[in-house]
Amino acid sequence: MNKDTNEQLAVHHTVIIGGGFGGLYAAKALRKAPLRLTLIDKRNFHLFQPLLYQVATGGLSPGDIASPLRGVLKRQENITVLAGEVIDIDPELHVVKLRDGQIHYDSLIVATGAGYTYFGNEQWVDAAPSLKTIEDALDIRRRILLAFETAEREPDPQKRKALLTFVIVGGGPTGVELAGAIGELANNTLRHEFRRIDPSEAQIIVLEMAERILGSYPADLSAKAEKSLDELGVTVRTNTALVEIDEDHVMIRAMPDGDKVDLPASTVLWAAGVKASPLGHILSEQTGAELDRLGRVKVEADLTLAGYPEIFVIGDLARVDDTSGNPLPGMAPVAMQQGEYAARLIERRLSGKTSEPFSYHDKGTLAVIGRNSAVATLGPARLSGFFAWLIWLFVHIMYLVEFDNKIMVLMQWAWNYFTRNRGARLITGADPFPLIETESEKDFEPSMAPVLK
Amino acid sequence: MNKDTNEQLAVHHTVIIGGGFGGLYAAKALRKAPLRLTLIDKRNFHLFQPLLYQVATGGLSPGDIASPLRGVLKRQENITVLAGEVIDIDPELHVVKLRDGQIHYDSLIVATGAGYTYFGNEQWVDAAPSLKTIEDALDIRRRILLAFETAEREPDPQKRKALLTFVIVGGGPTGVELAGAIGELANNTLRHEFRRIDPSEAQIIVLEMAERILGSYPADLSAKAEKSLDELGVTVRTNTALVEIDEDHVMIRAMPDGDKVDLPASTVLWAAGVKASPLGHILSEQTGAELDRLGRVKVEADLTLAGYPEIFVIGDLARVDDTSGNPLPGMAPVAMQQGEYAARLIERRLSGKTSEPFSYHDKGTLAVIGRNSAVATLGPARLSGFFAWLIWLFVHIMYLVEFDNKIMVLMQWAWNYFTRNRGARLITGADPFPLIETESEKDFEPSMAPVLK
Repeated sequence: MNKDTNEQLAVHHTVIIGGGFGGLYAAKALRKAPLRLTLIDKRNFHLFQPLLYQVATGGLSPGDIASPLRGVLKRQENITVLAGEVIDIDPELHVVKLRDGQIHYDSLIVATGAGYTYFGNEQWVDAAPSLKTIEDALDIRRRILLAFETAEREPDPQKRKALLTFVIVGGGPTGVELAGAIGELANNTLRHEFRRIDPSEAQIIVLEMAERILGSYPADLSAKAEKSLDELGVTVRTNTALVEIDEDHVMIRAMPDGDKVDLPASTVLWAAGVKASPLGHILSEQTGAELDRLGRVKVEADLTLAGYPEIFVIGDLARVDDTSGNPLPGMAPVAMQQGEYAARLIERRLSGKTSEPFSYHDKGTLAVIGRNSAVATLGPARLSGFFAWLIWLFVHIMYLVEFDNKIMVLMQWAWNYFTRNRGARLITGADPFPLIETESEKDFEPSMAPVLK
Repeated sequence: MNKDTNEQLAVHHTVIIGGGFGGLYAAKALRKAPLRLTLIDKRNFHLFQPLLYQVATGGLSPGDIASPLRGVLKRQENITVLAGEVIDIDPELHVVKLRDGQIHYDSLIVATGAGYTYFGNEQWVDAAPSLKTIEDALDIRRRILLAFETAEREPDPQKRKALLTFVIVGGGPTGVELAGAIGELANNTLRHEFRRIDPSEAQIIVLEMAERILGSYPADLSAKAEKSLDELGVTVRTNTALVEIDEDHVMIRAMPDGDKVDLPASTVLWAAGVKASPLGHILSEQTGAELDRLGRVKVEADLTLAGYPEIFVIGDLARVDDTSGNPLPGMAPVAMQQGEYAARLIERRLSGKTSEPFSYHDKGTLAVIGRNSAVATLGPARLSGFFAWLIWLFVHIMYLVEFDNKIMVLMQWAWNYFTRNRGARLITGADPFPLIETESEKDFEPSMAPVLK
């Protein structure tokens, strides 16, 4: 071991697990810090999750909303990106265990986020996919587009109706944005593209167990969002629970004890029930940290674990309450601020200082509904409609541009906006057109197109 | 059956199988013809194949080079797009059989293109994927990027060398373009992104059995292409055959009877040996049409089958010889001109006219090598270097813009060009980082990054 290596090993080593908003912002905040960093992620890219629904509905391509982590961090000389999956953490030895090796840390930031839960109905995972990864988005895109394709070929009007019914379970921001985008797709993009069906006859239904959608927003914005959805042909059913998913049906029930109602619907999408990443359980077992109902790790005021000041948990994996005792929502701005806080505290500690407890500076929340409507809170202000949509657009574009110079996404978007086009509506995957179960020797009409005079 | 339907059924019905360059240009050429059209394709999009290598190397996203067929044809009222797979053709009954139905035709245009063949070495399909579909491109992208990721983590220098060696089998345009793009990736895009390996040390080897690459081009352009490849760090081995593919090795042999040479290489890509679509065999069985060695259907001078003047075969599926008896190459311009020819002849026949035999108007050929070099023939002229690259860019952009207003692709490209970025280099798929087989308890160095002073 030469002198250089010895010198290196003496330098404080911070390991960050997860390259989402929290982990990446922590890494970037440490770019000038006198320490060494390792960022570990299962994937080789950072995903701009808030726009994943655009990939699922054919508006954007995966490459538009994802940036290779190595590319983002290539100029940051004090960081190493390690592609790998963490399977365990040993807080006593200060070691992170990967599937094929291990790495020592002096400080650790755990930012592995959250996934969906099916509340014990895990048998619905295949029938009602959720939207968390690029692969999910492409699968959902495929299901939505195939439903229209299959409906075009389906002679039975009952089956056709089921094929043209889309049920979205969960009326949070993701469910609302997904429903709005499917509404846009059906009413605008696919117009004139089919000969036998009218895509605008598609039914899009949002099921929400609570009494209103967007429960984390003020009530008047929920009402406005519902109105915007209605204009896109989306039906919102509040106080309604999903009971069963069948091949071409779902069974729903009005809360708390209504009758079961049968709804013909071939496509069901899951946007309900978030659950923190499994690394939370590992941390809990190893350190005794408490988990909340959603599997989030309860942290100290400085985002570290009790008894383990060198371990930070941030982002969707962390349970942090605001001053009124409500948990901070699982949103990008929370994760980004927490990442920056953890970075600053690690750096300050190197020179013997500490920090004030973490506090979230709430700049507002935003949810978009279709092509040019949104709802937003902005400090004390509540906005809706086109103006909120403009703000939404601006905020997202600014982030993307600042982040990776994704000016192209802005252009693509402007293009889609004006042309109402969604050029990425490709059906991809192993078997693009699974055998459609109909009469085996069905005669297709020679053409369903009108005759030109 | 009401009067309208009767009237419709009396109208000449043209069925086109395949929405590639040939089929789509035939469809567009018939947009004002007094007939009904049905376009059948397995996929719901037209693929701009000449840029598929850009998707495989992370420069573009699938959505950039594919356009939904329904979108492209939505304003063409006389056409119906049918998503489905053709399994048989009955030329006596004038019926096309799909997996789940059948459709009657008056005229038929078969344009199902070609795929790759492994010359009887079909066991290489998995070890050396070819580049024909979006799925292929994403698989190849994944393999290339994973090779660099795995090399970064691999302590054994021998294994690292194999991981950083990329063998491309076949020195035709696809092999050359793919090799050039991998050269760009290794030398420019990935620079500074790794800490332990230097991506520019990657070896990229093109194997070509013939005595020069780009055999269909003039010999001086082959030499220039080889020189451009060399500047990108690509080694061309002509007169060399692939004998065997092993996990981390390939066995090659100098032609005709050199010794076997072992080459450590983890990534092998197949760009040799084209074979026409299986529909050629069906046509041959049903109509007695002759096939050539590559499975292409020999057609009459008017691109129809002998004895079946209502059946056209065009594009890569057709064997058409030029005036000197050489087969026309499997290129987009040939397919496009043939599609337009078939369309015109069908329309002329409706008014009792015929056409002159098909003749190909050769506007030239183009192959790009890396970031700003290409070789081109343009009528009698032969071009190479930057000027040829500009022409290549112009031709492709013009096509994309004319075709689907894909102005965004132009912008993306310009952006990639100036930044040397490839923002779409995402590793996607079911298992992003398969377990890398190394010592199970390997210690990763805390950081391979230099220490900031």
